[in-house]
Amino acid sequence: MSTVSSTPHAALRINGVRLWNSLMQLAKIGATPKGGVCRLALTELDRQGRDFFVAQAKVAGCTIRIDPVGNIFARRAGLDNSRPAVMTGSHIDTQPTGGKFDGNYGVLAGLEVFQTLNDAGVTTESPLEVVVWTNEEGSRFVPVMMGSGAFIGEFKTDMILAQKDRDGISVGEALKTIGYAGQDKISPKGIGAYFEAHIEQGPVLEAHDITIGVVTGALGQRWFDVVITGSEAHAGPTPMPLRKDALLAASHMVQLINELALDHAPNARGTVGMLDVYPNSRNVIPGSVKMSVDLRADSDATLTAMVDKLKAQAAVIARNGQVSIDLTQVVYFPPQAFAPGLVQAVRSGAKTIGLSEMDVVSGAGHDAVYMARVTPTAMIFVPCKDGISHNEIEDAKSEHLEAGCNVLLHAMLAQAQA
Amino acid sequence: MSTVSSTPHAALRINGVRLWNSLMQLAKIGATPKGGVCRLALTELDRQGRDFFVAQAKVAGCTIRIDPVGNIFARRAGLDNSRPAVMTGSHIDTQPTGGKFDGNYGVLAGLEVFQTLNDAGVTTESPLEVVVWTNEEGSRFVPVMMGSGAFIGEFKTDMILAQKDRDGISVGEALKTIGYAGQDKISPKGIGAYFEAHIEQGPVLEAHDITIGVVTGALGQRWFDVVITGSEAHAGPTPMPLRKDALLAASHMVQLINELALDHAPNARGTVGMLDVYPNSRNVIPGSVKMSVDLRADSDATLTAMVDKLKAQAAVIARNGQVSIDLTQVVYFPPQAFAPGLVQAVRSGAKTIGLSEMDVVSGAGHDAVYMARVTPTAMIFVPCKDGISHNEIEDAKSEHLEAGCNVLLHAMLAQAQA
Repeated sequence: MSTVSSTPHAALRINGVRLWNSLMQLAKIGATPKGGVCRLALTELDRQGRDFFVAQAKVAGCTIRIDPVGNIFARRAGLDNSRPAVMTGSHIDTQPTGGKFDGNYGVLAGLEVFQTLNDAGVTTESPLEVVVWTNEEGSRFVPVMMGSGAFIGEFKTDMILAQKDRDGISVGEALKTIGYAGQDKISPKGIGAYFEAHIEQGPVLEAHDITIGVVTGALGQRWFDVVITGSEAHAGPTPMPLRKDALLAASHMVQLINELALDHAPNARGTVGMLDVYPNSRNVIPGSVKMSVDLRADSDATLTAMVDKLKAQAAVIARNGQVSIDLTQVVYFPPQAFAPGLVQAVRSGAKTIGLSEMDVVSGAGHDAVYMARVTPTAMIFVPCKDGISHNEIEDAKSEHLEAGCNVLLHAMLAQAQA
Repeated sequence: MSTVSSTPHAALRINGVRLWNSLMQLAKIGATPKGGVCRLALTELDRQGRDFFVAQAKVAGCTIRIDPVGNIFARRAGLDNSRPAVMTGSHIDTQPTGGKFDGNYGVLAGLEVFQTLNDAGVTTESPLEVVVWTNEEGSRFVPVMMGSGAFIGEFKTDMILAQKDRDGISVGEALKTIGYAGQDKISPKGIGAYFEAHIEQGPVLEAHDITIGVVTGALGQRWFDVVITGSEAHAGPTPMPLRKDALLAASHMVQLINELALDHAPNARGTVGMLDVYPNSRNVIPGSVKMSVDLRADSDATLTAMVDKLKAQAAVIARNGQVSIDLTQVVYFPPQAFAPGLVQAVRSGAKTIGLSEMDVVSGAGHDAVYMARVTPTAMIFVPCKDGISHNEIEDAKSEHLEAGCNVLLHAMLAQAQA
């Protein structure tokens, strides 16, 4: 058995067919008739998925540890196990009508790296770990990114264990039922680097025909509840100048929110995803509208500038439309830059292998965004068909998944032999 | 007893207190805790309201006839009963959370005219009639304006009698239950003129501080169902230029529809009352929007111009927003001008009495709009508080209701003595 310390193993490649088969095998657990997966967190199907992972990891020679919120850590020993681990992973819970790749790819790509190293007889200096985070999706239990959030101390363990689903079953009860209520106390201090490979869940790579997204960080988010109050009146007898139409004001808000993002291209986002009209009757001028606002940007300075303009322009829209507009912030996630050294490791990995790559930001939340608060972190994106995920038609190409896994291999090797 | 033929009776005035008391008495039948009325068509409460009307009409010396759809005709004989009748009336059914005045005012104002003529010992040349139309509101049974529509032949009687409410009770059954399944065959040919006094249900008279609205006609209406189809995608990972946001396109449509009406001020209307977003989730770019469009104008030429521009601009919005926009017309009511001679009679009535008046159009549907298709017709509007109706807080001033009733008296006298 050779060691990495002196040999860069630049020619090492993962087995794309094995990775694909592994993904398809896991996708059978909770498979839906439309080709997707429904494997909600901490259900019997999730247990089967976890058991599949644990069995594969054991075959790959890993030791398994499980923490009190059910996060699973599969450890591959290094030459010097006093060194902090180089970790990768993601989640295997899905949305109710989810796909085969979201989360699952990051977990199984980690196992494929281990199997590749096994086949090549490589032992790294640092130990390696693959983690399966509990309940990233948040479909059955809130909050989302529960396992990684608890791991880094964002949530107290007791609070997490007490969270209940719609049927009143708590996280703690569900963990016991499926046999994943672990006792291992695992500290983030034992981790030296965290990588997460993931499908992009957006259309950028596909649009640019690029294989590897080098993720430089995650957008910050500020979400608002907006209530617009006008005056309900009959559509027929009420002349246009005498109206206080809440939906007309809302239409200006929707365009404003779009413009706020365009003003800070290319990384800012502005979305109104939810909009409810009252009384929502064909011949009644809407008296009120409730809507959501989701603003994202790569710096707090940009987010602040967007919110300042949102408030100022909302006041103008309210005055012009003779309505009131109330804004309440309901969510704040700070922007999270990833570690430059690890981002460079991902970029170098792609270049070494000869893959097209571009810098991208993660618009969505990921376990990696929490991990970046406690350890150097980076992500690797690969294209997904039409940018679609959280959908049974979610799809990705085998060669892209293979490419991303090769980048993960070399980025981890670079850290683990350092 | 004098006759009208030689004396104009210009000094004759109705009894405003009696009219008000009559309105308040009828409003007790189905009174709601919030001061409104819930008296749905052909219910036991509607029966009580009809009985109240019939009893009052008999006291006033009228003969009562009831047609097969339950319209009630109270006839006050003239000197020459071979002449066509001068008719007035409205409806006494209400919305579920309706007010005291909508419809009820037009009916009781007619009875007050009869009582005033009785007190003054006046018999007109032509016979007079007050009609109570069945189910104008359409809250329990569709279509709206059922009784007047059946009367003029817009709807077949058998079709109307077969219409069912949510509990499966038909109009025919309900009429029998409350004892108002009439047998009288009454032809529109026996009617020489139709007046209807009504609260404005809009804010124009109040805004102009005018007592009498001389209604010159009713707006035509064209309603559309609009379906906007974009592409559902995650708000975070999807950059602004790659979006196909159905709600953003809808926001442009809402503004377009507003502009279409402003382009044809002052009488055109454009309203989006109903708008549903799919999937309506905070962090998902809306994939589709369904919305209603309600266009109204005082001529078919204007309506056509509005619809032509709607279609042309919708195509531009669709192209710019990378979405599809489908428009389907679901309602068409032609514009209805009222009879110039009768409109002038209303205007003259107001001037004779010394009341402020202005020409207005009816933006809403009324039984008078159907009646105008078969007989010379005009309407008299009086202000209602804040333009609000179809609401328990609907309110009107006693002096305005009295003024409108005086105009009705003189407009009817002018026709009945001609």
